[in-house]
Amino acid sequence: MAYQESITLATHGRGTRDINGEVARIVASSGIETGICHLFLHHTSASLILCENADPSVRSDLETILRRLAPDADPSYSHTLEGPDDMSAHVRSILTQVELSIPVSRGRLALGTWQGIFLYEHRTHSHRRTVTATVIGQ
Amino acid sequence: MAYQESITLATHGRGTRDINGEVARIVASSGIETGICHLFLHHTSASLILCENADPSVRSDLETILRRLAPDADPSYSHTLEGPDDMSAHVRSILTQVELSIPVSRGRLALGTWQGIFLYEHRTHSHRRTVTATVIGQ
Amino acid sequence: MAYQESITLATHGRGTRDINGEVARIVASSGIETGICHLFLHHTSASLILCENADPSVRSDLETILRRLAPDADPSYSHTLEGPDDMSAHVRSILTQVELSIPVSRGRLALGTWQGIFLYEHRTHSHRRTVTATVIGQ
Repeated sequence: MAYQESITLATHGRGTRDINGEVARIVASSGIETGICHLFLHHTSASLILCENADPSVRSDLETILRRLAPDADPSYSHTLEGPDDMSAHVRSILTQVELSIPVSRGRLALGTWQGIFLYEHRTHSHRRTVTATVIGQ
Repeated sequence: MAYQESITLATHGRGTRDINGEVARIVASSGIETGICHLFLHHTSASLILCENADPSVRSDLETILRRLAPDADPSYSHTLEGPDDMSAHVRSILTQVELSIPVSRGRLALGTWQGIFLYEHRTHSHRRTVTATVIGQ
Repeated sequence: MAYQESITLATHGRGTRDINGEVARIVASSGIETGICHLFLHHTSASLILCENADPSVRSDLETILRRLAPDADPSYSHTLEGPDDMSAHVRSILTQVELSIPVSRGRLALGTWQGIFLYEHRTHSHRRTVTATVIGQ
């Protein structure tokens, strides 16, 4: 059995947005008891991450490290036409990934106690981002 | 068809542990001949990686690079309450990922010759880590 | 339903190769309308990435950043027997991943407008790389 649904989410500049509620609702709609829920972001300058969800400073420290690994406006970039945050956003997206799967057990997302699913916007301006969830199992 | 099983594994401080045997056993139990085996770690300060499994120095050099990319006790961290290795562990977990899928062919994991599956503990103390394997296919 | 096919692709030293065409053909062969297409690279010194596919300078800038994060011939490496680009290739492979899944909708890969699937060779010499695609769904 495969159930698929796409959602579009607004982001408000660089930062994370918790999407557990949206994903949990899709898993419930699927009627699938045992399987996986695959999430796919249809963009190359944002990510989907699993991150500690209790202390927001974990996400701000993560941001600090990503800025260091893939700086905005790095003098080495040749892809600069779309702004100082575009090439860095592509690198951040590739290092942190745009797709992931989560087990579904007894009809629910089987996340760890401290695991949250976050849409991570890497561009400095607001965007609308589309995520497709595919729930597969029985 | 979907088969699911969770296992709990002890880690002994920062470092990798080969889990091929445990995963191969679950795939055999599933009875699935063609499909994928999805592995999911229910934690945010350890990882699941596919890494060269012949020379252990590959994993020690990887550790050297990860320490550089996400240093312990970085002066920029504000999430410091859980120890100098906690925030670095979260970043390492996000850069290296906590979930992955491997093809199942003729009832077995279809890994490359030099590919090993490793549970990578990023905390400096020992932990118990839970992995859920979901085998989907026919 | 699960459909599986492996393909072997030539690479010509470090760099990316667009494999959308090969993957689209496999999805069409599968006959699956709704589900996911899982891609798995059976190697530890190359990657599969989703990257902006319009401007090739995005990929050359990505290369610049990866060279910085995982340098060739880093003096700290102890795994040096297979050449100055081997240990860096293993790190690059782990940071960028060797497997990914893409939704299949109405019998086709549901990629974003600017998303391309690339095989990324991290070794400086040419290789033959095997990718297994598993399409699961209905």
